[in-house]
Amino acid sequence: MAKKIRIIDSTLRDGMHAVSHQFTPEEMAEIAAGLDAAGIDTIEVSHGDGLGGSSYNYGFAAAKDEDYLKAVSQVLKNSKLGVLLLPGIGTAHDLEMAAKFGAKVVRVATHCTEADIGEQHIKIAKELGMEAIGFLMMSHMVPPEKLVEQAKLFESYGADAVYITDSAGAMTPYDVKVRIEAVKAAVSVPVGFHAHNNLGLAIGNTLAAIEAGATYVDGTARGLGAGAGNSQTEILVAVLAKLGYETGVDLYKIMDVAEEVVAPKMRRPQIVDKAALSLGYAGVYGSFLLHAMRAAEKFKVDVRDILIELGRLKTVGGQEDMIVDVAYELSKANKQ
Amino acid sequence: MAKKIRIIDSTLRDGMHAVSHQFTPEEMAEIAAGLDAAGIDTIEVSHGDGLGGSSYNYGFAAAKDEDYLKAVSQVLKNSKLGVLLLPGIGTAHDLEMAAKFGAKVVRVATHCTEADIGEQHIKIAKELGMEAIGFLMMSHMVPPEKLVEQAKLFESYGADAVYITDSAGAMTPYDVKVRIEAVKAAVSVPVGFHAHNNLGLAIGNTLAAIEAGATYVDGTARGLGAGAGNSQTEILVAVLAKLGYETGVDLYKIMDVAEEVVAPKMRRPQIVDKAALSLGYAGVYGSFLLHAMRAAEKFKVDVRDILIELGRLKTVGGQEDMIVDVAYELSKANKQ
Repeated sequence: MAKKIRIIDSTLRDGMHAVSHQFTPEEMAEIAAGLDAAGIDTIEVSHGDGLGGSSYNYGFAAAKDEDYLKAVSQVLKNSKLGVLLLPGIGTAHDLEMAAKFGAKVVRVATHCTEADIGEQHIKIAKELGMEAIGFLMMSHMVPPEKLVEQAKLFESYGADAVYITDSAGAMTPYDVKVRIEAVKAAVSVPVGFHAHNNLGLAIGNTLAAIEAGATYVDGTARGLGAGAGNSQTEILVAVLAKLGYETGVDLYKIMDVAEEVVAPKMRRPQIVDKAALSLGYAGVYGSFLLHAMRAAEKFKVDVRDILIELGRLKTVGGQEDMIVDVAYELSKANKQ
Repeated sequence: MAKKIRIIDSTLRDGMHAVSHQFTPEEMAEIAAGLDAAGIDTIEVSHGDGLGGSSYNYGFAAAKDEDYLKAVSQVLKNSKLGVLLLPGIGTAHDLEMAAKFGAKVVRVATHCTEADIGEQHIKIAKELGMEAIGFLMMSHMVPPEKLVEQAKLFESYGADAVYITDSAGAMTPYDVKVRIEAVKAAVSVPVGFHAHNNLGLAIGNTLAAIEAGATYVDGTARGLGAGAGNSQTEILVAVLAKLGYETGVDLYKIMDVAEEVVAPKMRRPQIVDKAALSLGYAGVYGSFLLHAMRAAEKFKVDVRDILIELGRLKTVGGQEDMIVDVAYELSKANKQ
């Protein structure tokens, strides 16, 4: 019997990063209808940074969370509607709203060492009758045993599954394999993997994750997403079909949605350019890039040296003030 | 001691497909100078279909083979100049010309079951004092033992190395691993791997090849190449650096060449669209696509059904007449 793989499509959430969160509810509904007809299991919808992300800090979306959810839930026939929530950005109130508008699945996303800040939202989601998934971001930053500890925390809160998330697109297939294997062995819930393509390895890493035991994987049509984008859903479906996995997705239909519905709505092609590659190589958050570029100009240092040093220091979101410090130290070192 | 990997950059050969063979000698010289300064071992130059490829059949290049070779050889300081030759398209005379204009390396490319038609050119190359590499195209089509037989033939002709070439971008990492391991165990010369990105696996497959024993790998700046393009050289350099391999390439310099010199000369972004994915999924030559699209329209069948059937029949270049037959049979079956 073919092994079943669940695909969670994030074109309408992570993909929002690639369009500066400017998909309209109508555009979302059109894309969602196509993904639904193609047989996608779960369709994730929200601002790129999750529920409540629309803000001065993270960029304003073209519409409100509820408008997106309403528009998409109206067209879904078979797919489950999902949302993403980062505690601190999204609130319990947002989650209740999402449930009211038909969201059946929530991924509670925390930094890979901070599952504990997701406890409350996992529990609320369960009370609301939703499927709750723990989502460990920037998982390349810590060794497998740390991820095991954090995944077990999520499981203890009642999470129905746990994701290892390569937010910076910094992992190699080996990095993925050891992390997924360790977490898979330690928890009894399904394990998922979310890739980014900064090192051109989104599909390769997703295959490595599946071989290591992941049964939930993410994709986006045309690879739309932050940085270099995600695993391209239609490629993933094709490769998994070739390898004999069952995804429940119709290959021709998903290819057609990507080409005919999503591609015309893209603002730029999803490629691995110098900036995306630098971020993946350094292993730092995409949101650091603009700050680092400004600091590079001011202190006359190569932006890549700044990013690599930030990666070495394992800086995380919220530590943007360190960027200037790093640039200053590098410029001093260059002068010596 | 770090393991050494030789990178052969084919931006100026396979990449020519992506610009309809229209790079000018001046553009080639500018790109080659950048690749040379970045530390690329070997730079392959010619029409996308190799020496002598410029023709009505394969598309006319913007200039003659000798003009390209002359322009590039003049700017090279450290990199070796390479060419590709498909027996039947390129001739012994072309090879002599290439040697005269400074080519030190030739890849003699044959279908994966026809190494014997490369014997003469391998021997001529050796007599001319060139490095001669056997290049087995469409290697996904046959099992490892067949590739072993063909690789041994190339070795017996005096080839200095043998390449497994995934011309259609149809292989998964497992397909690559078993083929490279088998060939590596059977020959005493270095083994190389040339990827295409139709299934988003160019980098993942190249890593699988290296793990299985390949020491020569191909790339192109920005992934420029036929179909969905090749392994993106600058990504390959970054990933190999991350994994501790030595390529001799300066990461920042190769990133800069790709972004500042190559990208502005591109006609279109190198992405995996529906056509490229269909070809990789079906495992057929890119040159079949236009014929298949015409046949699909004429016989009112899905072009993907035609491509998949052509892949199942293991059709190869030269069998374009089968495309109409396949389309006709499919249309009959659809009516029943």
